[in-house]
Amino acid sequence: MLPETVTEYLSANRQRHLAELIELLRFPSVANTEPEACNQVADWLVERLGKLGLEARSVPTQGRPNVLASLHVSEDVPTLLIYGHYDVQPPDPLELWDTKPFEPVVRDGAIYARGADDDKGQLYAHLMAIEALTEAGDGVPVNLRILLEGEEEIGSPNIEPFLIEHADELAADAAVISDSEFFAEGLPSITYSLRGLSYVEVTFRGPSVDIHSGLNGGAVTNPVNALARLVAGMHDSNGRVTLPGFYDDVLDLTDAERTQWEALPFDEAGYAKSLGVDALGGGESGFSVLERRWARPTLDANGIVGGYTGLGSKTIIPAEASAKISMRLVANQDPARIVEGFREYVAENTPPGIQAQVQLNAGARPVMVPPQSPAMEAGKEAMAEAFGKEAAMTRCGASVPITELFQRLLGLDAVLMGFGLPDDNLHSPNEHYRLEQFYGGAVASAAMMCNIGRLLAK
Amino acid sequence: MLPETVTEYLSANRQRHLAELIELLRFPSVANTEPEACNQVADWLVERLGKLGLEARSVPTQGRPNVLASLHVSEDVPTLLIYGHYDVQPPDPLELWDTKPFEPVVRDGAIYARGADDDKGQLYAHLMAIEALTEAGDGVPVNLRILLEGEEEIGSPNIEPFLIEHADELAADAAVISDSEFFAEGLPSITYSLRGLSYVEVTFRGPSVDIHSGLNGGAVTNPVNALARLVAGMHDSNGRVTLPGFYDDVLDLTDAERTQWEALPFDEAGYAKSLGVDALGGGESGFSVLERRWARPTLDANGIVGGYTGLGSKTIIPAEASAKISMRLVANQDPARIVEGFREYVAENTPPGIQAQVQLNAGARPVMVPPQSPAMEAGKEAMAEAFGKEAAMTRCGASVPITELFQRLLGLDAVLMGFGLPDDNLHSPNEHYRLEQFYGGAVASAAMMCNIGRLLAK
Repeated sequence: MLPETVTEYLSANRQRHLAELIELLRFPSVANTEPEACNQVADWLVERLGKLGLEARSVPTQGRPNVLASLHVSEDVPTLLIYGHYDVQPPDPLELWDTKPFEPVVRDGAIYARGADDDKGQLYAHLMAIEALTEAGDGVPVNLRILLEGEEEIGSPNIEPFLIEHADELAADAAVISDSEFFAEGLPSITYSLRGLSYVEVTFRGPSVDIHSGLNGGAVTNPVNALARLVAGMHDSNGRVTLPGFYDDVLDLTDAERTQWEALPFDEAGYAKSLGVDALGGGESGFSVLERRWARPTLDANGIVGGYTGLGSKTIIPAEASAKISMRLVANQDPARIVEGFREYVAENTPPGIQAQVQLNAGARPVMVPPQSPAMEAGKEAMAEAFGKEAAMTRCGASVPITELFQRLLGLDAVLMGFGLPDDNLHSPNEHYRLEQFYGGAVASAAMMCNIGRLLAK
Repeated sequence: MLPETVTEYLSANRQRHLAELIELLRFPSVANTEPEACNQVADWLVERLGKLGLEARSVPTQGRPNVLASLHVSEDVPTLLIYGHYDVQPPDPLELWDTKPFEPVVRDGAIYARGADDDKGQLYAHLMAIEALTEAGDGVPVNLRILLEGEEEIGSPNIEPFLIEHADELAADAAVISDSEFFAEGLPSITYSLRGLSYVEVTFRGPSVDIHSGLNGGAVTNPVNALARLVAGMHDSNGRVTLPGFYDDVLDLTDAERTQWEALPFDEAGYAKSLGVDALGGGESGFSVLERRWARPTLDANGIVGGYTGLGSKTIIPAEASAKISMRLVANQDPARIVEGFREYVAENTPPGIQAQVQLNAGARPVMVPPQSPAMEAGKEAMAEAFGKEAAMTRCGASVPITELFQRLLGLDAVLMGFGLPDDNLHSPNEHYRLEQFYGGAVASAAMMCNIGRLLAK
């Protein structure tokens, strides 16, 4: 049990902590387009961590810097590695935000801003916990290693060499990653498997310039029509992905998982309503909605553009068209092999008169960690202590690439203990984070540190 | 035969006429987005026509104004109606222009600017002809009615009521439309049939905002994937359009036409090369390239957009996607009936979780005029006189909606006598117009006026 003084301290300092989060959310730290904001937010975090007594620094990479921090308590206590990311998704379409994405606003018990949940609000829980344990408890009971990444939302292109280079510095007995969500409001969950990602962009080029659709229509392969056919052909009529070898390595879900998931309080109609659709769809026949989101690989066009998209009409056969395609992968699929299948499919389905180009934007392997372990137990107890309810063991459809890298490169099976809620509009306009989750996350983090100290004691 | 003094006058005044065309091309008269430039160019044309001795005025419509002008010579001579349009296609993509679209540049014997061929360069032929006949000949030998439209490139949304309202003023014995092209360099042609147009925009709406593709992928119908499937399904594997009733009213081409077209010097490889493609494609099996361009209806996506189209990756299921679709129609198809088929197809192929919207952007009926008539003969002789070669009788895949309206509303079978060349980059970056075609067009116009005066003498 967490000392009462610690929870009281956290309660007493809510307003100040919220003000600090607001400061953090003001940085428009989109990795691809706002490098300066990323440098500034990294420096800001270094300063905050320094004030909490950690040794902290901003470490340059080929892209955005990562923040590294450590707290050495004793040789005799276990070491916990904590991960979060300070970069955020691009905020567009801006016109769909009720308030500006980088001018945080508190209303109806939540804070609205890009990154409020994903992941600034979640990562800040750990800073609050360190402060409370230091100021009002018996000090932090574990050694700490903290990594705050700057390129998570763009597929972590530089994290792998970074982890290899700093492996000694990141060595730990357990790891916690806070970049996930509750199964539902009031039902905390710990995630033991995440989908991976292959993100590609395919471009079809036809005529060297846009040409007149009347003079030439019927004689020239239209890149938009051809790309539509290419993308449409990536699924069959049962919603199965048609890329060569796509399902070859998929780890089937177990009967136990099916049974557990059927018992979860999942309201399909409410889920559809929360997304603003009148019916669900888009997945494979023969699987439940949760199974399709968690345990089956998927393929989605994230964007498409070609030809004239302005006001009114323009009668052209466009010179080119392109689509961004992400494939979500499940254990044991290999992103490289999936991309090979994608390239093969494109090569086989490029019609005469079209030049195709496939560009790989990002990749991440799927991951599964053992759902039973002392660290996992520490996480479950911490969630129960902070939120008053046993955590469900769930999978997650999203990718948190660092999880797989921790497993593969550092030998650490991370505990995915996240504090977001499913309706926080992650990656969408009006992203927000409930204040109760924000404050509860700090309690959970402090409890996690204490539990790790106890359950992994040397 | 045109008096030698007239052709000499035209030769002597080439530089000045070119300077006037350059002035005309500087107006960025895109109908949808540049209303002020359209007003200005209409006023400029009114002033020029006034100086040539015509009564001219700019007539407001619900959209851009039309220029109307007339010259009364005598009750005893026939009346010729001349049509052109001063509005131009949007110039984008701007980055593909070698020089700026509205800063005309002469190089390699051609003038480069948006509208240089389509249609400012072509319409200006008639003004030069009027001037030459007046200044150096025996005067214009016919009564003239001139209509210069301001919304041709956006589907002429206001021209039908305009023609009805001004039918008396436009009454004529023959009509000439200069908004078409030679079959090939050195081979003038007169067009007797044009394709019509149905231009629609279809939007698929899914989730109320862009949502996370990892958390939700597999559970939600993706509007981009669904739209790709919708567009792909508009053609079958033989390149035939699948919309209900699409081919029902198509007038089959005759054996005579097939034979004539086979005799035309059409170089498929050269045509493909001029468009920058390594192979032709995109049309129905069982028809030659010219048949597919001239006598068969087609369906092309002119533009598509949905989701994230910026730099790098964004992992979303987009809230919506839309496509602009133009269908080129041949005699005797009815655009309204085709749009009904389109709506029916969309309704039948909208998957669960998607709301579809179809918007009609523009429509034009196809047209065919009798290839034999005194006016047609006048045009053929004029082309031979100006360009030294008998004109081929051709169809054209583009739409010139005014042709059908002249036939239906004014009872006039127009002579489509155009001076462009097939490689002028109409509707594309680097549109240009050969100076020889520009000067030759003026000779042809003057000869046409003389021939009409003689062949249609009362």
